[in-house]
Amino acid sequence: MPGIRGPSEYSQEPPRHPCLKINSKEPFNAEPPRAALVSSYVTPVDLFYKRNHGPIPVVDDLERYCVSITGLQGAEKTLSMKDIWNLPKYTIAATLQCAGNRRTAMSSTKQVRGVGWDIAALGNAVWGGAKLADVLQLVGIPYNSRVTPSGGKHVEFVSIDKCKEENGGPYKASITLSQATNPEADVLLAYEMNGETLNRDHGYPLRGIVPGVIGARSVKWLDSINIIAEECQGFFMQKDYKTFPPSVNWDNIDWSTRRPQMDFPVQCAICSLEDENIVPTSKITVQGYAASGGGRGIERVDVSIDGGKTWVEASRYQKPGVPYTADDESNSDKWAWVLFEAEVNIPKNAVIVAKAVDTAANVQPENVETIWNLRGILNTSWHRVNVKVSHSNL
Amino acid sequence: MPGIRGPSEYSQEPPRHPCLKINSKEPFNAEPPRAALVSSYVTPVDLFYKRNHGPIPVVDDLERYCVSITGLQGAEKTLSMKDIWNLPKYTIAATLQCAGNRRTAMSSTKQVRGVGWDIAALGNAVWGGAKLADVLQLVGIPYNSRVTPSGGKHVEFVSIDKCKEENGGPYKASITLSQATNPEADVLLAYEMNGETLNRDHGYPLRGIVPGVIGARSVKWLDSINIIAEECQGFFMQKDYKTFPPSVNWDNIDWSTRRPQMDFPVQCAICSLEDENIVPTSKITVQGYAASGGGRGIERVDVSIDGGKTWVEASRYQKPGVPYTADDESNSDKWAWVLFEAEVNIPKNAVIVAKAVDTAANVQPENVETIWNLRGILNTSWHRVNVKVSHSNL
Repeated sequence: MPGIRGPSEYSQEPPRHPCLKINSKEPFNAEPPRAALVSSYVTPVDLFYKRNHGPIPVVDDLERYCVSITGLQGAEKTLSMKDIWNLPKYTIAATLQCAGNRRTAMSSTKQVRGVGWDIAALGNAVWGGAKLADVLQLVGIPYNSRVTPSGGKHVEFVSIDKCKEENGGPYKASITLSQATNPEADVLLAYEMNGETLNRDHGYPLRGIVPGVIGARSVKWLDSINIIAEECQGFFMQKDYKTFPPSVNWDNIDWSTRRPQMDFPVQCAICSLEDENIVPTSKITVQGYAASGGGRGIERVDVSIDGGKTWVEASRYQKPGVPYTADDESNSDKWAWVLFEAEVNIPKNAVIVAKAVDTAANVQPENVETIWNLRGILNTSWHRVNVKVSHSNL
Repeated sequence: MPGIRGPSEYSQEPPRHPCLKINSKEPFNAEPPRAALVSSYVTPVDLFYKRNHGPIPVVDDLERYCVSITGLQGAEKTLSMKDIWNLPKYTIAATLQCAGNRRTAMSSTKQVRGVGWDIAALGNAVWGGAKLADVLQLVGIPYNSRVTPSGGKHVEFVSIDKCKEENGGPYKASITLSQATNPEADVLLAYEMNGETLNRDHGYPLRGIVPGVIGARSVKWLDSINIIAEECQGFFMQKDYKTFPPSVNWDNIDWSTRRPQMDFPVQCAICSLEDENIVPTSKITVQGYAASGGGRGIERVDVSIDGGKTWVEASRYQKPGVPYTADDESNSDKWAWVLFEAEVNIPKNAVIVAKAVDTAANVQPENVETIWNLRGILNTSWHRVNVKVSHSNL
């Protein structure tokens, strides 16, 4: 699609919300203030974290835009936006989380490499689009396929962006054919976010949304979808976003020994407080988010005001009625976060801690040291903030 | 089925292996010695843990044995063993773990209620049988159903046993219709274990096997399978096997506030050593198992000889070639444990620790206190053993 690919420089970046905390300007990586996350169940588009590896592509001729699908039996197919729009539209509430969320705190033990993030490199949106399972069915691959007749077992998304050289080409990632063709996995080719046309920062005109998986696999600005035998060999699948033990460093790393990270572990963080706080009264409300990967819901969130010695259970204030077209409404939020709150009465100096438990009874690790990894991904350690009550009100 | 139900007393119990450690005699609850678990990838039937709530049923007339399926449109259906045998047979390697595994160690902080178990209330077997999805298809419920035309959303297994009064009837449990009708979920009606006819202790002639879920849902000695609107209301679904926060005790417990536990978290334990060991040499091999629920595989196991300050990665010695009929052989062990080993050189006094990471990057909690719960389920804290090297060999 010559003429509608992205610029190679940063001269055509879209406008951004002034409250965003910029962690890297070019490529643009930014997160909202903590408190913004807990002000609404659905994160506003302009406050949703921005994670990029290159300049934002410009697609100004939607008529000429199309997605090619390769690796099929016979010739490749090309789908226009009209073809996508003609498929049944689904709206799915799904939380996306950058694998690097909370990376900055992981560096506090020992330096890690990567863009620094506080705790807001995630957001919850209502994504609108066609199910990838329907798109693949349209081009001849049935629901719930594990392998195609020609041996395809993975579905690769390739972006039209021009990201950094380390990648050797456009951004790409893959998921298994099983997940892609399972309509219950809710993988979307999304063209809407929170009821509006997807904006440029979030993948206009079309992006993948892979619920329950680290954000890095939800590829923006789709160029092609390839049915392939082996998982994607791109940089961000093979040389990044893998989880290593603490003993691996940049001298002894062997990327081939690990799988690309897909699913993510149970996570939560306090958003109503900063790392260090002075508050006027001892009675405060602690608010935050909790999420787990793979469609595992949150069972509960525990909050402590004494550094983790004793705990109270937080309540949820997640809004009901999130749109979802599924038959079983009890699953309507399976890909989405839970917002929690707890009213607590704190002493003059308090270390407030939050930790979540998911439906599989997985828990967060107490200390970041035990999950330290050189790329600083998936810091899910107990989230702690320090609070002092100001003298005048004691 | 009058005449082929179980005895109400313990006069007809089957013979058991003399090495089993008996935690409760009536009903019979027993586990093998730790070391037995790591001597083979497939746990021998007679060393597989036995978990019962009543006397072992006697089914001595297989011609008369049948399973009724209720909650269908129209009359209930009755399936004989021949009907089950006539369906395609699958063999699935799946680890079953009692939710109470490692309960005894949870009581070391603060007493919990329930049968005491060391670390061997789990085992890995190759189960042979029909897929529940095929059985339900045979009686008119299609693959991948979320709800039946009459509103059925759950599939309840009811045993022919007569378990303790607390239960108010036979043992039962349910899973969702989605899981039951999904052929990839590999839920079986099993009649074989490790290539032999299921024995009485393990559910002869027919039992449910629900891979990736706590053992309590794999109901033995099936009497009926009921398609129901709400999840099973039996004792073991509603008043047991739920995960509560540490703040809940027997005075303030409200069972209705929690979901029945289904999926389970990442787990591992060292089996080649006891809690206290004296070994002749400082060079030892640490062996154990690791498993996670929901089909999430094990990413790695870390072993420490200094109580958790530093770690080395264990290797796997899981045997390849486990039978599975799936197209994608990379998934052949998704429901099964991993056996690990690490060669270590220990100081005179060592605290050896093991912890596992699953493919979702979930980790085990460092301390049992933080996951303490009054029923003592799902103790997945780091497993520690103390080792002393005897003087003569230093």
